[in-house]
Amino acid sequence: MAEAEQKLASGTARIDFATDPLRYRHWKLGIDGKVATLVLDVDEKGGLFTGYDLKLNSYDLGVDIELADAFERIRFEHPEVRVVLLRSGKPRVFCAGANIRMLAGASHAHKVNFCKFTNETRNAIEDASAGSGVRTICVISGTAAGGGYELALAADHIILVDDGSSSVSLPEVPLLAVLPGTGGLTRITDKRKVRRDRADFFCTTEEGVRGKRAAEWRLVDETTPNSLLESAIAARSHEFAGDPPPYPPPQAGEGRVGAGEGREEAVIQGIALTPLERALSVGRRDYKYVSVAFDRAARVATITLRGPDLPSPASVDEMVSRGAAFWPLRVARELDDAILDIRLNELDVAAIVFKSEGEPQAILDYDLFLDQQGRHWLAREIRLKWKRVLKRIDHTSRSLVALIEPGSCFAGTLAEIVLAADRSYMLIGQREGDNRPPARIALGDVNLSGRLAMSNGLTRLHTRFLGEPEAHDTARQAIGQTLDAETAAVCGLVTFALDDLDWEDEIRVFLEERASFSPDSLTGLEANLRFGGPETMETKIFARLTAWQNWIFQRSNATGESGALSRYGTGRKPEFDTRRT
Amino acid sequence: MAEAEQKLASGTARIDFATDPLRYRHWKLGIDGKVATLVLDVDEKGGLFTGYDLKLNSYDLGVDIELADAFERIRFEHPEVRVVLLRSGKPRVFCAGANIRMLAGASHAHKVNFCKFTNETRNAIEDASAGSGVRTICVISGTAAGGGYELALAADHIILVDDGSSSVSLPEVPLLAVLPGTGGLTRITDKRKVRRDRADFFCTTEEGVRGKRAAEWRLVDETTPNSLLESAIAARSHEFAGDPPPYPPPQAGEGRVGAGEGREEAVIQGIALTPLERALSVGRRDYKYVSVAFDRAARVATITLRGPDLPSPASVDEMVSRGAAFWPLRVARELDDAILDIRLNELDVAAIVFKSEGEPQAILDYDLFLDQQGRHWLAREIRLKWKRVLKRIDHTSRSLVALIEPGSCFAGTLAEIVLAADRSYMLIGQREGDNRPPARIALGDVNLSGRLAMSNGLTRLHTRFLGEPEAHDTARQAIGQTLDAETAAVCGLVTFALDDLDWEDEIRVFLEERASFSPDSLTGLEANLRFGGPETMETKIFARLTAWQNWIFQRSNATGESGALSRYGTGRKPEFDTRRT
Repeated sequence: MAEAEQKLASGTARIDFATDPLRYRHWKLGIDGKVATLVLDVDEKGGLFTGYDLKLNSYDLGVDIELADAFERIRFEHPEVRVVLLRSGKPRVFCAGANIRMLAGASHAHKVNFCKFTNETRNAIEDASAGSGVRTICVISGTAAGGGYELALAADHIILVDDGSSSVSLPEVPLLAVLPGTGGLTRITDKRKVRRDRADFFCTTEEGVRGKRAAEWRLVDETTPNSLLESAIAARSHEFAGDPPPYPPPQAGEGRVGAGEGREEAVIQGIALTPLERALSVGRRDYKYVSVAFDRAARVATITLRGPDLPSPASVDEMVSRGAAFWPLRVARELDDAILDIRLNELDVAAIVFKSEGEPQAILDYDLFLDQQGRHWLAREIRLKWKRVLKRIDHTSRSLVALIEPGSCFAGTLAEIVLAADRSYMLIGQREGDNRPPARIALGDVNLSGRLAMSNGLTRLHTRFLGEPEAHDTARQAIGQTLDAETAAVCGLVTFALDDLDWEDEIRVFLEERASFSPDSLTGLEANLRFGGPETMETKIFARLTAWQNWIFQRSNATGESGALSRYGTGRKPEFDTRRT
Repeated sequence: MAEAEQKLASGTARIDFATDPLRYRHWKLGIDGKVATLVLDVDEKGGLFTGYDLKLNSYDLGVDIELADAFERIRFEHPEVRVVLLRSGKPRVFCAGANIRMLAGASHAHKVNFCKFTNETRNAIEDASAGSGVRTICVISGTAAGGGYELALAADHIILVDDGSSSVSLPEVPLLAVLPGTGGLTRITDKRKVRRDRADFFCTTEEGVRGKRAAEWRLVDETTPNSLLESAIAARSHEFAGDPPPYPPPQAGEGRVGAGEGREEAVIQGIALTPLERALSVGRRDYKYVSVAFDRAARVATITLRGPDLPSPASVDEMVSRGAAFWPLRVARELDDAILDIRLNELDVAAIVFKSEGEPQAILDYDLFLDQQGRHWLAREIRLKWKRVLKRIDHTSRSLVALIEPGSCFAGTLAEIVLAADRSYMLIGQREGDNRPPARIALGDVNLSGRLAMSNGLTRLHTRFLGEPEAHDTARQAIGQTLDAETAAVCGLVTFALDDLDWEDEIRVFLEERASFSPDSLTGLEANLRFGGPETMETKIFARLTAWQNWIFQRSNATGESGALSRYGTGRKPEFDTRRT
């Protein structure tokens, strides 16, 4: 397995996650009233890296970056959309899954991060359904193999053409000696609840399953002859478009529920997700509200989040008119981009340090505004976007630490970052020569409401205090109060409260220690400690399925010179070490 | 990492799981009324393999085989025991954890199976508490490091001496670049519910945590000065010994509840777990009710279970007097030994085929007897033993298939094996030249009562029918009926019903196919498909934690030539690939 980095086709050194529909090479996004259509028509020559062609609608990270972008745009730019149709622009194939040559040539770190991102994209499709009522229908005419079928599994409804050849399959085990790791196995057992012995048969059958049996085994939701396909699609689209959108349950103090509802139905017009403005230099990455500074010798990336420079809006109309410049949305998009950049482009970074600058009260004001307007589509979408970004942080395989210093604004939504960190340090009192008041943190309703819940379905506070329900009650009582370091420590909200004398040494030693440990053992440690308590399909995908896939990606049976992934397409059979473990 | 097999110190070719207290080299078992004491005093020179000394009460699989045996004996031979004290026989150390030199020299398959067995032993300690009311108190005077603390975590109550040096620690990440994989991370977060940032600190601190902080962070339950240790132990033992034993809730048709209760308190005398009688040849392993036949060319082990040769007993006294020869107990012990033998000694076996011989009604009769006597300690222990053996099968990393043929007796408890299999094949009708009646399977109360629940907390039937509640209802209605192949298939209880014409070819092709796949991808596939639905601490340990550990065990940062596990104790620092994945 070549661990040499593949070369980006763009000739640049970094993978860029920013795109827009005019630049898509692989997807075509069309909007027709309440129905959006996303057509997958992969440009064979449009691979992210050099060295492979994206045949048969197979995909690499570049294809998935466009898909993720498309769903973001549907939700923000076209909130009127109730149904997304996923279709293929090629005959006889829906999607052949992840490109094998890309996988065979990718570094272990890229393979793992590619799988993680594609899983997040599939989860976002499901989040659009659960959170925004955007139902996705996947139309399979031809073959949907491996990652192609995994993409279909993210949809609410799968229509399979019953023409004797269209099929769904997960041929990873027989063909490639790896797993259907983009949520495939988990969605088969936990979403579609396919009987386990049928799942075993299905996942070991290269050619997959067609027609009636696919429906009977619940691998798809309906089958239709080709001649009736368009009318079946139209019928389902019409049905799903008529479903009422989900609204969050009314919250205390929300007010004017009826008015909000009326407003949504009456004035439903999107906002433009304008391009992120970024200044990139060797050691920094500067957005408007987010900056990243790299200390590559120490293997640390410091992300500083800045609070809003405008007060929270006076009205929904003002929020909408601010659009992509609206602080909570802009900072979320910038933070998301920064995290992805570190994940894929800065593999040597051991720890991400989070800092913030601003007024805690300003953050709480914005949170209150979003709570009060919680029934407005844009307020709802911004919360859901934050939920996804925070989950992305939870699932980022780097040590996460929050430093809470004078002048910081870890309140409300931003306090979630403190709770997402593996550890947090808070400075007691003021610094010599710094007349800013001592650091404060503050919780808001948003930290307890579940609107920013983790993948395990619990709030970060709940997860933190699984063993200390009384601490959870104390946190609830502290909503809206700004807490100093010693109080925050007593309440269990931060790991350590330190005075200025100890601060620098403690942090330095911690970061040095983190950089000295085996990156792999830290990945395993953090993946286990971050998710106490219940499990969901999402946590199963990111913890169980991903861990097994990572293991298999290291095994010579898959990625060794004679492994199945390496020999795929060569005409030579793989050679296996037959010992079971 | 040397993948060459280590040599067994015994000079034999197979690891033997059978032992008894007279043969223990590492543990001393003492019984004093309701309190059993298990003293860990490892014989340095008593390693299972050659090439390492078991210093500082460190352990290998051999030490754990004795521990597992000791708990079995406490439950069956000394049912009067209510409390087990786990103590060290050595000064200044409770247990230093798994032996590093053993780990560094072990094959990947042995490391993984060693971890699996030790996890099962820890789970059995917890099962003794939950199922039998046997409370375990772990007394730590000195250091409990790594696997030593993980052993303590399996106890109900941990007493730590507060003497300025006794400590608990999980130093795997900083010292060895691996995880505390014997349930450590999961028990920290999900059993003891330690706050995640404290857990992060604890798991990255080589020297661990002592005294008051250990109690405050819930890493231990109480601390005591050395001078008060014995009185603290006596007080806790007295307290726990007074707890009422758990009884299963009364079941319909159980009858004479009061009498049963009185009986237990009055006549509580154990039975002797006599040595298993085994005849071992190159190709076979024959017990009284279990036979294993190896087809090493095909990489298949066939396990045949035989039904009882006596009718079910007429009374509790008769059950007790049969003792270890009582069919349900004997077959469970034999099956357990056979499974462990395959796991550790027959690494090349790809698939385990389960067959059975006997009268289905005889199995149902025994099940009914055990149900009716469910409040008797021995009936309860036998059920709990079966529950553990079946879980061991669920967690066995080989393809499992049940073949249901004329003359078989997959009914009640034995039907669980069909439900545990990845696939099952049932023959329709009779075979030419075989006048036995067509194959039948039958469900009993035991398949639905939850008494043989999987690690996920559900019955195998419930797990199977997560997506088909109506099939679960049908199964309930079929209790006690013998079902032929076609009915069983329609009910969803077997994967395929085949007639004699197709049988041989289908099975042969399936087994050949299984042997042709990558063993690793099958391990990952099966670990994911077998456990749909909810997760528990146990499933987290076997799926999430184990998968991450397996991955790490393959990474050069741990097991490469310059990895931490390989360099441990050499004085040379490990060298890490610093890229995070």
